[in-house]
Amino acid sequence: MDFDNLLGFIAACLTTAAFIPQTYHSITTKDLSGISLGMYAAFTCGVVLWMIYGYRIDSAPILLANLITFVLSVTILYLKIQHQLEERRESKK
Amino acid sequence: MDFDNLLGFIAACLTTAAFIPQTYHSITTKDLSGISLGMYAAFTCGVVLWMIYGYRIDSAPILLANLITFVLSVTILYLKIQHQLEERRESKK
Repeated sequence: MDFDNLLGFIAACLTTAAFIPQTYHSITTKDLSGISLGMYAAFTCGVVLWMIYGYRIDSAPILLANLITFVLSVTILYLKIQHQLEERRESKK
Repeated sequence: MDFDNLLGFIAACLTTAAFIPQTYHSITTKDLSGISLGMYAAFTCGVVLWMIYGYRIDSAPILLANLITFVLSVTILYLKIQHQLEERRESKK
């Protein structure tokens, strides 16, 4: 693996693994008011397109990295939607 | 532009632009307790490596998309560090 590919590989690992601490933080603290629903909705859609792109050009790294990111970002998106629905129920009481 | 490149372009736009609503949300609400410092530290480092990678392989799209993402994620990182320092000062009082 030459230097540039190594650089790309480490960059992909960092920008993928970065979502692990956020997912852990959101699951354990349930503190989602500071999380933007817009971000995770758009980001999750983008990651799905990256997966399709990776599949179509036969790039396992792009497909795998974005599959991991998808699992993490859709978890945060799910928690945020739940949080938002709960807030709405509370405000109706 | 063929279908696959269009797919990649839209995916890049979504995963880059996704950080705009989060940056706006964090700046306007100052609600950063739910944001993971670990995520934005790792993600910002990863984006810097993507920029170097894009520069070295002469890929303007990779360089530009990650430059935009860098500005957004480093803004959130800065706000989170400030928030954390303020919390520490409060707890010392």
